[in-house]
Amino acid sequence: MTVEDGGAPSERTRVRRMHERSRYERAAVYAILDAGLLCHVGYVVDGQPYVTPTAHWREGDHLYWHGSSASRMLRTQRSGVPVCVTVSLLDGLVMARSGFHHSMNYRSVMALGTAEFIEAPEAKLAALEAFTDRVAPGRWQEVRPPTDQELKATTIMRLALDEASAKVRTGPPVDDEADYALPCWAGVVPVATRAGPCQPDPRLAPGTPAPDYLRTLRVG
Amino acid sequence: MTVEDGGAPSERTRVRRMHERSRYERAAVYAILDAGLLCHVGYVVDGQPYVTPTAHWREGDHLYWHGSSASRMLRTQRSGVPVCVTVSLLDGLVMARSGFHHSMNYRSVMALGTAEFIEAPEAKLAALEAFTDRVAPGRWQEVRPPTDQELKATTIMRLALDEASAKVRTGPPVDDEADYALPCWAGVVPVATRAGPCQPDPRLAPGTPAPDYLRTLRVG
Repeated sequence: MTVEDGGAPSERTRVRRMHERSRYERAAVYAILDAGLLCHVGYVVDGQPYVTPTAHWREGDHLYWHGSSASRMLRTQRSGVPVCVTVSLLDGLVMARSGFHHSMNYRSVMALGTAEFIEAPEAKLAALEAFTDRVAPGRWQEVRPPTDQELKATTIMRLALDEASAKVRTGPPVDDEADYALPCWAGVVPVATRAGPCQPDPRLAPGTPAPDYLRTLRVG
Repeated sequence: MTVEDGGAPSERTRVRRMHERSRYERAAVYAILDAGLLCHVGYVVDGQPYVTPTAHWREGDHLYWHGSSASRMLRTQRSGVPVCVTVSLLDGLVMARSGFHHSMNYRSVMALGTAEFIEAPEAKLAALEAFTDRVAPGRWQEVRPPTDQELKATTIMRLALDEASAKVRTGPPVDDEADYALPCWAGVVPVATRAGPCQPDPRLAPGTPAPDYLRTLRVG
């Protein structure tokens, strides 16, 4: 795993294998994965790339996500599916004194590998519970658990985090020295993704309070 | 182009060609593309999918984005590069009364096709100006324009929006009828991405005011 500061996302040649990664690199990659809720999964069908957004979560050294229509197309590939899973968090717009040096502050991870389907109902159930606990700890105990039929209709995929890289840009613009004399404003417009106040279902029984785990939810 | 409500992103078979799309569908797709700043571009190298995040903008019936390391890998393909560009905006977490019916509110577009490199310096310059004007109208006139060398170092790609689909989920959870009697809280936790107050560059001359176009910036 690699962690880079700024620039464009890594080419495969720069996405190092797990055995080369440091504890620091692993922690940086995992922190970005854990901060995001939505990943973009890339896969290939007949030479055409597809990129689908879906919810993700991490357990140990695996990244999990809800399958989508992709899974229907790929289900015949029992031996595994080559994927690229990317998680990106936009943190700011970097306003430089030249057009060229404008940029974005962001955190992103690109993970490559072969995805597998979670097949066993008990494994699916455990994964869903882990996902729910990660987003809203305590909720799993409050809601109706999945029926056998619902579990069958749920597709969960996972990827071993063996090959991944993080890219991060932070801080103010970096301008050419001569451009610092220009009179235009320069700096960063911060961008953040946040959860707002809970909106009760219109059919919720009046007086049902929103649980604490939702009022303290962190996204991004 | 198609617009669907909820569920998983479209398979190619359901991403209709442009000539089948209605004016309403086109407007829905374009509104989502215009609301986002960050797209995820999927492409294939030697059978391996890659998904890279980058800034995007739309001009008419074309989607533009800044090239990245991807472009270096793909530059040999002068005839065009098969891509999937996906833009996703997370709008909320949908908390249902059963694990199975939990969902997300979101807007997303998936666009398929063959991307081309913008090569001519004048075309690059025009595209960069259009991008800046879309994010921060007026800024282009205030900053130093690109040099010839900077333009050469800038990679811009574009995709004709001939084949695209939008997917949108809005509103409260949809539970099984029997589950509405359960006592747990249900509803939506709204999620929004917003720009915050401008952070001046430490090297900015004191007293330089942030321009209006940054204080009213809309993201997402």
